[in-house]
Amino acid sequence: MSFDLENYMDARRAEVEEALDRYLPAGQSYPGSLHKAMRYSVFSGGKRFRPILCLASFGASGGKGRGVMPVACAIELIHTYSLIHDDLPCMDDDDLRRGRPTNHKVFGEAIAVLAGDALLTHAIELVVTVAGRELGSETCLRLLEDITRAIGVDGMVAGQVVDMESEGTKAGEETVSYIHSRKTGALIASTARCGAIAAGADGATIQKMGAYGEKVGLAFQITDDILDVEGGFGELKSGAGLDSQKQKATYPSVHGLQRSKTIAAGLIAEAKAVIADLAEPGLPLMGLADIVVRRVS
Amino acid sequence: MSFDLENYMDARRAEVEEALDRYLPAGQSYPGSLHKAMRYSVFSGGKRFRPILCLASFGASGGKGRGVMPVACAIELIHTYSLIHDDLPCMDDDDLRRGRPTNHKVFGEAIAVLAGDALLTHAIELVVTVAGRELGSETCLRLLEDITRAIGVDGMVAGQVVDMESEGTKAGEETVSYIHSRKTGALIASTARCGAIAAGADGATIQKMGAYGEKVGLAFQITDDILDVEGGFGELKSGAGLDSQKQKATYPSVHGLQRSKTIAAGLIAEAKAVIADLAEPGLPLMGLADIVVRRVS
Repeated sequence: MSFDLENYMDARRAEVEEALDRYLPAGQSYPGSLHKAMRYSVFSGGKRFRPILCLASFGASGGKGRGVMPVACAIELIHTYSLIHDDLPCMDDDDLRRGRPTNHKVFGEAIAVLAGDALLTHAIELVVTVAGRELGSETCLRLLEDITRAIGVDGMVAGQVVDMESEGTKAGEETVSYIHSRKTGALIASTARCGAIAAGADGATIQKMGAYGEKVGLAFQITDDILDVEGGFGELKSGAGLDSQKQKATYPSVHGLQRSKTIAAGLIAEAKAVIADLAEPGLPLMGLADIVVRRVS
Repeated sequence: MSFDLENYMDARRAEVEEALDRYLPAGQSYPGSLHKAMRYSVFSGGKRFRPILCLASFGASGGKGRGVMPVACAIELIHTYSLIHDDLPCMDDDDLRRGRPTNHKVFGEAIAVLAGDALLTHAIELVVTVAGRELGSETCLRLLEDITRAIGVDGMVAGQVVDMESEGTKAGEETVSYIHSRKTGALIASTARCGAIAAGADGATIQKMGAYGEKVGLAFQITDDILDVEGGFGELKSGAGLDSQKQKATYPSVHGLQRSKTIAAGLIAEAKAVIADLAEPGLPLMGLADIVVRRVS
């Protein structure tokens, strides 16, 4: 079973870029500042980990056709909205994201807040309209239920609240785990489940994808924390060492660097074990899991 | 046809208050700051114009049962999210809303941004889960399509962007009309349509409700502008005279006070003419239209 992960990633990424461009209103739409701000952050060099994960889970669950693409792109828009709001001066107050000025640095705070609001709203509209047409209304509602649960008051938003409120408090293991599972983990787990839901998979497959996604999502956040300490640019962070400057609740701060790496590697091994029985259709998911820890090994 | 509007409003308002309390997570949920902030703004003395309009349109369109209630409440949550974000220091920078300190004044800017995000997300989840179960998936998707269109990049968010960017520019009639139709009008028109959609009404009825709602929504915003000049507390504004201090693009600034009142009264007469053929089931809608202009006459 030879599988060219690089090639797979590049091909899916190109599809995602093309679809995102198509699903977003044109950059010259009125009002210009809003659309420019939305596009600035959506097309800012993201690796498209989540949409590719969604496509990979769809394929591994027996999905055919392109009905999953609006779902994959909606999740990327939601991820982007969360980054724009997290970077705001009143939140993490970050000037850089992936080496470029953050949205509010370029467009001002008001437009940044509204661009985030618009991306979230547009993502839901995208699932409702495009995915609804292609996948049917029952499937569409299951997707929306999963996604909104992952990003709401017991998901991503809650994770960001606790993350912010834990700054400087020397948070313990339980708090760090709460933050990570919700702030990053919940949407990544939902992404993996949504691929299966869009494919019309049975409950067991959806659950399996969710279990895989939870482990990958947690490992993703842990490796991002590690990258912050070690000086690389993570997917989520703006620069090196910011977490410790801000006394953020992170895995390295609670478990130390070496043990954090061991935990991340263990989670990835577990995630791969969950999908081991998928054989060839599961290879992209195997590869995506490997990529997460490869960033810090 | 005797109809006690006061009594109707009070009864519906009590139902809405009870339902909002039930649909929101408990105030003592974790993380506490988030849930307290969400509830603070949702239960801050709003008149519940939108949810009552939704219930009235549902009834006038032949709707039976309680399946519309989650839709009516979701719209109120979305309205609340928009108020919280609009009040932020980086936007309208308002300290008071309905005579009470604004959300960010009490909970800080970060929690205010996140409470708004959470209310929007929770509103969608509410329609997807509760309304989806009660009204069926087809109807639920039509509701979501209508609502997300009304509040997105060509609706409410766009209206807020242009409103903000027009401050101090002596905006003309066209710009004021753009702002009003999107910032307030779009969601009110969608609210009226959603009552009909939830009732399973035919296309002609949905369209009729939309036409009624557009006129009522525009009149609503115009009377709010007038209230700002005349010194009352509008539904939307925090205090008197703020619009002209900020050189906001308003109807009175473009058309003058007297002509604005005439325009609002004309719109309400038109709105009532649209639904004149509904007879008794349409009486609550007639009454709601009257309430809008009664505020300034």
